[in-house]
Amino acid sequence: MERFTVEILTVGNELLIGKICNTNAQWLAQRITRLGGKVTRIITVPDSLPDISQTVRECLSRKPDFLLTVGGLGPTFDDMTLQGVGEAVGRPLKVNSEALRMVEEKVREYSEKGVLKRPLVTPEREKMATLPEGSKPLFNPEGTAPGVELSVGETTIICLPGVPIEMKAIFSLHVEKLMAARSKLKYAEGSLLVLGIPEPDFSPTIDEAMRRYPGVYVKSHPKGGEATSTIELHLSAFAESLEEAERMVRDAASWLEAEAKRLGGRVEKPG
Amino acid sequence: MERFTVEILTVGNELLIGKICNTNAQWLAQRITRLGGKVTRIITVPDSLPDISQTVRECLSRKPDFLLTVGGLGPTFDDMTLQGVGEAVGRPLKVNSEALRMVEEKVREYSEKGVLKRPLVTPEREKMATLPEGSKPLFNPEGTAPGVELSVGETTIICLPGVPIEMKAIFSLHVEKLMAARSKLKYAEGSLLVLGIPEPDFSPTIDEAMRRYPGVYVKSHPKGGEATSTIELHLSAFAESLEEAERMVRDAASWLEAEAKRLGGRVEKPG
Repeated sequence: MERFTVEILTVGNELLIGKICNTNAQWLAQRITRLGGKVTRIITVPDSLPDISQTVRECLSRKPDFLLTVGGLGPTFDDMTLQGVGEAVGRPLKVNSEALRMVEEKVREYSEKGVLKRPLVTPEREKMATLPEGSKPLFNPEGTAPGVELSVGETTIICLPGVPIEMKAIFSLHVEKLMAARSKLKYAEGSLLVLGIPEPDFSPTIDEAMRRYPGVYVKSHPKGGEATSTIELHLSAFAESLEEAERMVRDAASWLEAEAKRLGGRVEKPG
Repeated sequence: MERFTVEILTVGNELLIGKICNTNAQWLAQRITRLGGKVTRIITVPDSLPDISQTVRECLSRKPDFLLTVGGLGPTFDDMTLQGVGEAVGRPLKVNSEALRMVEEKVREYSEKGVLKRPLVTPEREKMATLPEGSKPLFNPEGTAPGVELSVGETTIICLPGVPIEMKAIFSLHVEKLMAARSKLKYAEGSLLVLGIPEPDFSPTIDEAMRRYPGVYVKSHPKGGEATSTIELHLSAFAESLEEAERMVRDAASWLEAEAKRLGGRVEKPG
């Protein structure tokens, strides 16, 4: 009944200057959780070779079942994730013939569609087929750069592009089934809004709920400032069947609702 | 002319199951960048004492000027950031008299407003005034839990609550001026949309722009899949005056616009 573990390493200066929110990490975390996996860390590093390779080494030292990297697979000078992974695990980069076929096929397709003027595999495109030795390329239905699968020790490293539509397509097509094969657990969740009780006064009740309903995790989130006394409770559970996980969440939610009312609060479903 | 460095450590299972996007990290990264700082890492760990303390140790080993932790300052059993920081730096937790006065004041205020039924400093509230030895509490205008400032070696550790309104208030009130004092650099940025040129064909031009305009950083983001051939270029620069930084971005953007047109593309301002 053990959950598989995943670390997510997102690469990109745009995340570190706050230009965008890390929606890729959120999307992946949600999907992995529903597959029965446990995301144990999300790390963002700059487009910098030493930072990437050092962080990959640190992630691998914790021996997660999967290490997902996101971003830095493209054609520009600052796309250096594969180089960083290669350095971290001691696998030099080489043109991968299967990946090159994928890139060539995309060049043909985009030329026929008129997106490209000439069907050339430029150095920038060949870079996208240059992978750490021993890698398996993962076909990208939405762009040129293939994803990468690489086994190192007990960890499966998966490298995904940062463009959300490409990242999601490769995850759905290739990675999901690798993870599903590792997991037999199902996940259920639910939320309650408790109004009229300040969080510090409700927290002993939350502790009690987790003692009464082992296997259910309850997290409280005060909403819109403490003075409004609105707490969102998020309940989650894993079990061998979806029905069982849902029942665990439902039972704990009912008990919490009754306790909140007993303490003078109101309970709503979050909007 | 060196920029101060910041690592951001966000604590919370809700981020690791993908329940929410890490908007706190994005907001902080944006503010810090505009203050002339450089966010070098964003890390998310679970509500787990060994994970928090181990990661704080790792962050400190890289000697950033600031380490910001976000989340885990509240009253519940799984709010354990201060304990994790205390363990990491060898400072035991103690009730801090200044922090306790802040908590007592909030209890009085909320009682007078009728939010609290009785003006009691419960154990859950006293926990919010229990800080690593040597800490300075930072008044929280939006909630009970004070922020925390703690100097360790060359690094200033700042602990902020995870509720966005409280996090932003403490940052604006206390942290911004600490950082502004460390920085004399100003930041400017700009964006261009290039249409009709696939990213791999435009990337040599981006490299050339960065050679011609040293100090300007250009990052390309293909939008909506490669087949659409739309690239967003994000330009950024730091300089000793805002005017100088803006001029650097403007000059590089003009050159890139002319090159894109020369290569048969169109240029728009992002919407």
